[in-house]
Amino acid sequence: MTQVPDKLLKRQAILAGLATPWLANGRELAPQHPEWKDKEPFASLLKGDVEGALARGEHAMLEIVMATHAGMTTEEFTDVVNNWLASAKHPATQRPYTEMVYQPMLEVLAYLRANGFKTFIVSGGGIEFMRPWVETVYGVPPEQVVGSSIKTRFEVREGKPVLVRLPELNFIDDKEGKPIGINSHIGRRPIAAFGNSDGDLQMLQWTSAGQGPRFALLVHHTDAEREWAYDRQSSIGRLDKGLDEAQAKGWTVVDMKQDWKVIYPPAKK
Amino acid sequence: MTQVPDKLLKRQAILAGLATPWLANGRELAPQHPEWKDKEPFASLLKGDVEGALARGEHAMLEIVMATHAGMTTEEFTDVVNNWLASAKHPATQRPYTEMVYQPMLEVLAYLRANGFKTFIVSGGGIEFMRPWVETVYGVPPEQVVGSSIKTRFEVREGKPVLVRLPELNFIDDKEGKPIGINSHIGRRPIAAFGNSDGDLQMLQWTSAGQGPRFALLVHHTDAEREWAYDRQSSIGRLDKGLDEAQAKGWTVVDMKQDWKVIYPPAKK
Repeated sequence: MTQVPDKLLKRQAILAGLATPWLANGRELAPQHPEWKDKEPFASLLKGDVEGALARGEHAMLEIVMATHAGMTTEEFTDVVNNWLASAKHPATQRPYTEMVYQPMLEVLAYLRANGFKTFIVSGGGIEFMRPWVETVYGVPPEQVVGSSIKTRFEVREGKPVLVRLPELNFIDDKEGKPIGINSHIGRRPIAAFGNSDGDLQMLQWTSAGQGPRFALLVHHTDAEREWAYDRQSSIGRLDKGLDEAQAKGWTVVDMKQDWKVIYPPAKK
Repeated sequence: MTQVPDKLLKRQAILAGLATPWLANGRELAPQHPEWKDKEPFASLLKGDVEGALARGEHAMLEIVMATHAGMTTEEFTDVVNNWLASAKHPATQRPYTEMVYQPMLEVLAYLRANGFKTFIVSGGGIEFMRPWVETVYGVPPEQVVGSSIKTRFEVREGKPVLVRLPELNFIDDKEGKPIGINSHIGRRPIAAFGNSDGDLQMLQWTSAGQGPRFALLVHHTDAEREWAYDRQSSIGRLDKGLDEAQAKGWTVVDMKQDWKVIYPPAKK
């Protein structure tokens, strides 16, 4: 479990949410799937090349989720997530992944709520992966989380109603999907939106096109020393069009290295 | 517009949400669709037989929604709903449809909220039909509404980002769909659930199977004089299995005629 590459969970739930199912039980399932040896993204994962698998994008990641969790109930999946989070540590800092979040973002969320805003998380990560922990970490309850999802089926098992996870994609909450997911889950246009990649571009466009005052912000990962530095050329979390549009439209761009005094919250005892 | 049959909107948003698109622009579109003359549910509607069309069930109703609103943006659809609600009156009472709601249900919602509960609407009706008015009427904000939906597409029209309604079904929030919709939108199991038809059965099963105290209630429409009387034989809003299961599991059943002193709220001036 601690073999997760440094890069993997540093960049937030979008990747973690999709890679977790593999970590949780993909390896155990592999012997039952000899075809994975020659089939991506499974082949890369079996070779331990998580980066290579991730570079194939979210569709590849969702294939992993679907392949590894078909038949599991939503409650069993929540247990998998909770168990993994309880034991996993970031390999560089040895801190739990739930502490590897951005302190300035925690502060802006708290500030908005203190001023009468309702806060939501809108992520490409798996919605059922995020919900078990985002309330504790970000103060955002499960019903205010929008994310990617697979389909589920209602079933009565031994007299008990359960929701079973199906190997079928339901929704990808990325790029054009973000305003669609916001409309579907929230049903109104945000007053303010915060992003850090081109996957957030349409959400920021949708937000800032609303009537009356709106606020759009991009976090630019510029700090190779304290966190990570990437933008226009990165295969994961690319920020390219967003930087151009931010300049053209006057969106706020945070330069992590220049603007953030602290990246991560202080370690909990 | 006032030719809507008495029965149609009396039984709440589930039917109204689906029939509205026809009322709003189905008749205008009919000349462009000569095939509707021989194709249900359109043929019934063209003959003015709204009851006959409704009896074909929600799939038929969603066909109407899809046929009549493809290409419209979500904001244009909201305007259609608002304009219709502003002028439409219940044919028997001459009251706006937004006042034809159940006073005891308004009271229980207010009571729950006053005691720290968060309240949601989970309806087979169209989510985009309900959201414009349920906050005013029920005190439930748009993000706490779960309903049936069609797919949308993000598009930039004349430089302005919009969400376009597509002629494609996304989700039917009825029967097995209700716990699925609750899990998808809310992400946690309800403490209490209230229903009035077999379309609510799986939601009540899912709710009452949770750990710790849970509450499940069915409203039984028994008052032909003040409202409507129907249950096991009705083609719309049938309540049959639910009555049996309520007895077997000890769910609360409200007898509208016996138990409700008032059905509708007092008329607004």
